[in-house]
Formats: sequence, structure tokens, C-alpha cells
Amino acid sequence: MNNPTESSFRATGTVALRWQGISLELLDQRLLPAQEHWITLENASGVAQSIQNMVVRGAPAIGISAAYGVALAARHAGAGGWKAEIKQAVHELSASRPTAVNLFWALQRMERVFHGCGSLREAQVRLADEAIAIHQEDLAGNLAMADHALEAMGFFADSGGSKPISVLTHCNTGALATGGYGTALGVIRRLHEQKLLTQVYADETRPWLQGSRLTAWELMREGIPVTLNADGAAAAILAAGEVSWIIVGADRITANGDVANKIGTYSLAVLARYHNVGFMVVAPSSTVDMSLESGAEIPIEERGGTEVREVRGIPLAPEGVSVFNPVFDVTPANLIDVIVTERGAVRNPNKTAMQGLFG
Amino acid sequence: MNNPTESSFRATGTVALRWQGISLELLDQRLLPAQEHWITLENASGVAQSIQNMVVRGAPAIGISAAYGVALAARHAGAGGWKAEIKQAVHELSASRPTAVNLFWALQRMERVFHGCGSLREAQVRLADEAIAIHQEDLAGNLAMADHALEAMGFFADSGGSKPISVLTHCNTGALATGGYGTALGVIRRLHEQKLLTQVYADETRPWLQGSRLTAWELMREGIPVTLNADGAAAAILAAGEVSWIIVGADRITANGDVANKIGTYSLAVLARYHNVGFMVVAPSSTVDMSLESGAEIPIEERGGTEVREVRGIPLAPEGVSVFNPVFDVTPANLIDVIVTERGAVRNPNKTAMQGLFG
Repeated sequence: MNNPTESSFRATGTVALRWQGISLELLDQRLLPAQEHWITLENASGVAQSIQNMVVRGAPAIGISAAYGVALAARHAGAGGWKAEIKQAVHELSASRPTAVNLFWALQRMERVFHGCGSLREAQVRLADEAIAIHQEDLAGNLAMADHALEAMGFFADSGGSKPISVLTHCNTGALATGGYGTALGVIRRLHEQKLLTQVYADETRPWLQGSRLTAWELMREGIPVTLNADGAAAAILAAGEVSWIIVGADRITANGDVANKIGTYSLAVLARYHNVGFMVVAPSSTVDMSLESGAEIPIEERGGTEVREVRGIPLAPEGVSVFNPVFDVTPANLIDVIVTERGAVRNPNKTAMQGLFG
Repeated sequence: MNNPTESSFRATGTVALRWQGISLELLDQRLLPAQEHWITLENASGVAQSIQNMVVRGAPAIGISAAYGVALAARHAGAGGWKAEIKQAVHELSASRPTAVNLFWALQRMERVFHGCGSLREAQVRLADEAIAIHQEDLAGNLAMADHALEAMGFFADSGGSKPISVLTHCNTGALATGGYGTALGVIRRLHEQKLLTQVYADETRPWLQGSRLTAWELMREGIPVTLNADGAAAAILAAGEVSWIIVGADRITANGDVANKIGTYSLAVLARYHNVGFMVVAPSSTVDMSLESGAEIPIEERGGTEVREVRGIPLAPEGVSVFNPVFDVTPANLIDVIVTERGAVRNPNKTAMQGLFG
């Protein structure tokens, strides 16, 4: 199987990126759900800009895109300075977003392959293969996460007849954020496939509205029951006893089990604990950064205030008002019931438990 | 003093409504901050529609507007059926919004005066006077609340030299939401006047964005330092230790001290407790409804999904996606450190403590 897009498509009907050998096509997620517009990129700079501008977003999809960006750099490099060109591409891609660690992980994989290449031709073939492998492994990993997650929730292979549950999620962690199935949203997809899902409450996820624009779109396309809510309404939904689990993704997980994820996640974790609702983080093991002791060491990206002051260019706030716009927050491990990766589940995460799976 | 608008203006420079004797002028808060457009209303139906459509909002401002609406009904009533016309006006106004109790309280005050009137002329004079009194008392009440609140926070008249604090607020509870000074935002105003304020973090307050559109506008006009944040970022701000108090308003407070307020308030109360940050509710005593035992009895208005699916007519979510859009949530008394009204402060509110001030 040379084109992971095909398997992605079969898996969910929704993809964020398509590798075409000489170009990478990205679905412009900024225009969803109004418009399904694809952007064709032929060089690493374009991919880096697309990551920075959030044409593509979601930690795993960012990592995969960056890998393809390196492959593109090789594909179009000149015979003379190909090594410098590829190095420059890696450098540029690594500066595109600071928080998600999958980006750096994917680039490191690409660099390792690059260092073993003796010729441009070899680099072209092997870097493309490596990017495709990263993409395929991500998709396979998503499917494995769903298995582990359902088991961690107490659903087993023979769970026919189990009572369906409702869940709440934040941001978009689905096919659009990954190689084609989803991390947290992959688990939710699997619950639906197994007839174990009553309702998904989707936080709209200000300021970028990934919940409204992407999660709602992705779930509606597949007939998965979704109800949208303002982020501030999540607490009322929990208080009403509607939800059994909050399931979210991650952009970086540290050695002690702290999790950086989309701004608003930490709030949900506090609310989950208060309401005695399960809190699950689902992410590929490439999200785990054992080199950082705790969440305090994670660099948190802050973006410009325009994202909060405006929606689609329409001002919602007075011109020039000061804005605090962190893209991520850190949820401490002690508020997390279980972290699920393709390697398995870590319950009540802490340094020792994390070491067991990722040491 | 016949025109409370004058005193309001002196108090803050910002007003939401102006009584003109034969008409009520409302600042169309739906268009702020882009446009300062005033709507002139000459009958109660127009006022009721303006309340329902949120031209005017904020529990106290709604109550004041409704009172003026009754006065307008008298002012323009026919000599023949004036009693029926005024009754109809009260009926129509009372159906405009279900949750805020100040509306019903103000209408009851107007009805009591109405029942004592023997002639249309008498009704015209006395109902206008009563509405003006409600407006003036609201403003005076706001100023008293600020006194009580600062004392409850540990600031006293001689607090010169006290260390300034930062606070976080939700929705808009300022001059725009009241007779002209503010409940929670009045307290914040007072902190600023007393040089006790470092920074106001304002939740943008989805879906209606009262924080971005109104609170930021109101505070910037007066040079009070304000930083806007997405609702989901409040937890990160608290975790950073930036904030000493969360100060919010209320739409209805029950006999046990439970508080209905703008959706998202309950979430903040849980977060405040978790982070050991003070949580203060500021509202006029007309917000207290001792006829309801607890928050479970408060009718919670749900509005259409369009408010979440769209911003200013621009779709943000897939067409037809299901939306849960409650306008208010209920914060249980046990998460509230202090309820402040113009009558004084109730610390650690419960049935007994509430009975002491409002029995």
C-alpha cells in the first residue's frame, strides 16, 4: 500500500491531507465547514507556513505534514546543494509551531533517515517512504488506541448489550487532526461503531472553533450524534449527569503524565474531577516527551489577540483591547484518569506509571 | 432629580437607557462595540421585544426597562381602556425573558402602584415616578454594593497602601447592565477608583460575547485595565495565580443562596474553589427570590442554536447541527464565598444566612 490516503479514506471518509508524490495536498481547515478547499504544496516552506497558519492543525497531522514537507524538499532539491536544502527544510518546519512534540518527533525520524542517505536519489526515495510510514503508523496507532480506550472504559470485545454512554470532547482530534481516524475522536468513532455511544457533546472550542467547525462537521458527515455547546456550558452538561467520560487529545505529554492540550482542556479536567466524570487523554506515543519532567517545562504557544477579538475578520471587541490568547494549557497528571496511546493505557498517570510504558 | 440618566452619566460616562418622558431610549447592545446606536421606544410592546431580542440585557437593566415600559403604556393609553392596556403591557413584558427575577420584581412594583391609581392621569404620573425611582434606587444600590464588596474583600475605608489585586469577571454587569454603575463591574470600578486594581480579566462570554463586546468596551472607555480571554482560558489564568477574586453578577438568587447567572458562571465557581480563589456574587436584593428553595427550581432560558452556530450571521458550524444553548447555569451556594447586595454581604451563603438578610 503506497498511498495511505486510500486506507484513511476507507477508515473514515474524512482526510486532512493527501500525498501525491510530488506534492502534498492539505484541506484548508480554516475554511471549514463553509468550504472544502484543498491547497497543493510543492515545497517545505509552503508546508511550514501552512502549519503556522493552521491550514493543517492537530498534533499528529502536523507531524505527518512536516514529514511530507521534508520529503518534498528532497523531491525538489537541486543535485548540488541537496543536503543543505533538506537541512534548511527541517529547520524551517521545526520553527512552525512550538508546543506539539509530534512535530519534532517526526522531523527527528526524517533526519535520522536523511543522515543515512548517500545520494539525492536515495534521499528522495527513503524520505518519501519514511513520511508515508509515519502517516500509516499514525493511522494504525489510532485504531489501536481505540481498542485500548474502550477496554479502559470497561467495554470489552463482547460488550454487546453494554449500556451506551455520552461523552464530551474538546477541540478536534479526529480524522482531520491525524492520519485519518482520530485520537480522542477515534475512540468516540469506535464507541459509535460498537453502538456504545448515545451523544457527543462538542465544545465549540474558542477561539479557533475547532469544535464547531471541524468536530461537528466530521461527526455529522458520518452520522455520529453530536450536540454543540459553548465552552462555558460544559459544566452545566456535567452537572446534569449527562456525560460519563470527557475524552481529549494531547499536544505534549511529559514524563510525569502532565498533558498540554488545547486551551480549555485543563478547565474540563477540573470539572470532570468535581463531577466525578472520567477524564481520558488519547494521543500517539510520539506525543510523549520523556525529556521533560513536568508540564511546567512545556513551551506554551501564545497567538495574536486577533483570534479572540475577531471572527472571520469581523471585530467582536473594541479595537486594540489587550488579549491573553494561549493556545494550550497544562493539565496536571493527578486530574487525569487514564492516558491512552497505541502502546496501551496508563491509569492514574505519574512518573512511575509513565516510565513503565515509555521508559 | 427627575432624570436618573444625568446621575448615571456622572457616575460612569456609560448608560444603557435614557428615559425621555414620552419615550424610552435604549442603546442597542447587539451592535456594540462597532456601533453606538440608540433605539427610541414609545410603547410597552417595543420594550418587551427589545428585552427579548437583547437590545437591552443584564438583569437590573431589564427590570428598569420593563418598569419604563409600563410607564410608556400609561403615557400613551387611551382614556377608555387604559386599565386593560396597562395590564396587557405588564403581561407582555413579563413574558419577555424567563430567568432574571428583577423583571418580575420591577413589574410587581409597577402593578402595586397601578392598582392604587384612580385615573389615567394619576397612573401616568405615578407609574413614571415609580419607574424613575426603580432606576435611581438601582444606581444607588450599585454604589452601596461596591462599599459592602470592598469590605468583604478585606479592603476598608482607610485601605490606602493596600496591595492592588487582579480579578476575573464574566459577562457584563456594568453600567450597561444596570441603572448606570454596575453590580460585579461596579465593584471592579470601585476597586479601580480606589487604586486597588491591577488588571481585570474579562471572559469573552460565549455565545453572546458580552465580555468582548460590552465589558471590554465599557472598561476601555474609562481607562480601566482589561485583558480579554476566551472562556476556556480562565482556568489557566487562575492556575498562574494571577487572580484573587472572581466577581460575577446574578439573574436570580434562591432562598438557600444558589445563584443563576450567565452560562459559564458555574464553571468559574468550580475553578475558583479548586484554585482557592475567592468567588463573589454581586446583585441587587431584587435578584433574590426567597420563594424558591433552591436553584433547581429556577427556570433556565434556552435560546436558539443560531447564537452558537453563527456570529453576526456568519456560519461557524455545519448547518443544522444540534446545539445546547442554555443562557444561564446554576451555581450552588456552597461554591460561593460571598453574596453582596445593597443590603450587605452574606458570607458562606446558606438558608439561614440568607434568611438573616432577606427573610
